[in-house]
Amino acid sequence: MIYKTLADRIRHNKPVVLLTIIHGPNIGATLLATPNLENLGTLGDAELDRVAVRDALGELEAGRTSVRSYGPSGQVTPEDLHDTPTVRVFVESFSPPPQMIIFGAVDFTAALAKVAKVLGYYVLVCDAREVFATKRRFPMADEVLVTWPTPVLTARGSDLGPRDAICILTHDPKFDVPAIQGALATNVGYIGVMGSRKTHAKRLERLTEVGVTDRKDLDRLMSPIGLDIGSRTPEETAISICAEIIGRRVGRVVPSLRESSGPIHK
Amino acid sequence: MIYKTLADRIRHNKPVVLLTIIHGPNIGATLLATPNLENLGTLGDAELDRVAVRDALGELEAGRTSVRSYGPSGQVTPEDLHDTPTVRVFVESFSPPPQMIIFGAVDFTAALAKVAKVLGYYVLVCDAREVFATKRRFPMADEVLVTWPTPVLTARGSDLGPRDAICILTHDPKFDVPAIQGALATNVGYIGVMGSRKTHAKRLERLTEVGVTDRKDLDRLMSPIGLDIGSRTPEETAISICAEIIGRRVGRVVPSLRESSGPIHK
Repeated sequence: MIYKTLADRIRHNKPVVLLTIIHGPNIGATLLATPNLENLGTLGDAELDRVAVRDALGELEAGRTSVRSYGPSGQVTPEDLHDTPTVRVFVESFSPPPQMIIFGAVDFTAALAKVAKVLGYYVLVCDAREVFATKRRFPMADEVLVTWPTPVLTARGSDLGPRDAICILTHDPKFDVPAIQGALATNVGYIGVMGSRKTHAKRLERLTEVGVTDRKDLDRLMSPIGLDIGSRTPEETAISICAEIIGRRVGRVVPSLRESSGPIHK
Repeated sequence: MIYKTLADRIRHNKPVVLLTIIHGPNIGATLLATPNLENLGTLGDAELDRVAVRDALGELEAGRTSVRSYGPSGQVTPEDLHDTPTVRVFVESFSPPPQMIIFGAVDFTAALAKVAKVLGYYVLVCDAREVFATKRRFPMADEVLVTWPTPVLTARGSDLGPRDAICILTHDPKFDVPAIQGALATNVGYIGVMGSRKTHAKRLERLTEVGVTDRKDLDRLMSPIGLDIGSRTPEETAISICAEIIGRRVGRVVPSLRESSGPIHK
């Protein structure tokens, strides 16, 4: 039953994660988990099932396969490894990794791409300026494209969903405006746009000029991008962007720059 | 004057950062910046000075030397690179990198060490269990020590200051309690301790037993560790910890798990 459901979901390109105990009591026990359906099977302990499924759905969201260790009832780290048997669970994710498309090959791009890779994203960097958009400047990116936003989003936009992110770091209205228009035409889960509050205000004017005025559309834009944690360097900004993506995905109330006022850097 | 002050500060092991224009108008112009003193020199534009010094102090805090690009008045990315001359500034930090000591060689450790490395930390991983604390499991760490917290903090605690962080991920009171006691005896800027709210409550009891009851001491502990952004995986947790470190360093009001209630994972 587990393997039939697993095969069905893989065949229909739907995410699913299989948990198998590879060490400890109940070795070989399997559990199949999906984001919205009931679990199939059990690892032999209700609390272990709950904790391991929670972790496995996180791994599935990142498209990652891994081995996790627990105490017999799902303790994250057993209190005493010498006395307590450890359960090791093989977590097999069947899911493409989430995608992050970064528009703009700027100083902040490399830092954001690095942090996104730690989180398991497939990272695409795109800029129309071929001297900047090079694999040499962004060795950590999975793909670097020299092109404009519209063709990229026309070609790939329909693949983007709630797990994916578009980050627009260009600061250049020639590039920002079509990138935002293209992003809004997709179901991407996160759209962040970099810039000072002044740049943001100007950008809103330009968006109005091209007809982007729908409140629902504007509500999707995280601009200025990132959490209001006082980031200064590109690396700190990358952390603030990824923390905003994580927090908004699960619906936490996070202190986004969008919701605060005053200068971003103090 | 600039070079005399630079030499003096280096000689006394005090952080200082030297900015030099290496491309654009005013090539060769220098400015010396320190966290608490007036700048010496100028890059030739007051607004460029302000923006470049802000960035340079961030780089200094991370102990990083880099080249940054600006518009002539400090624009982060020039609006049109073809028409506007770009100013490239060589930022030389004279400062040891900040340190992060991670107690506990657990699943979360590798993810935290990876993100900390992106932020420029010197990362030390410490655990008393030699099968877990290996360079092979933590190739990204600068140092992996098989020992208990007390000797490490006795030997190195006096070097720790506001830029540094101690993260205690062990979940084991045998290890947590001496790590917390040792950390509180230093001037380290951030002390985070992992665990559920239940573990946190039990830990407070044990700390009371060993005499850690001072409100000022307990206020220094970020426990449960990290921002309340709904992190699930080790990598997401690493982002939430680093975002908390950044936010608290600059005194932002950030939604720490410590200040919220209810289960950490929903």
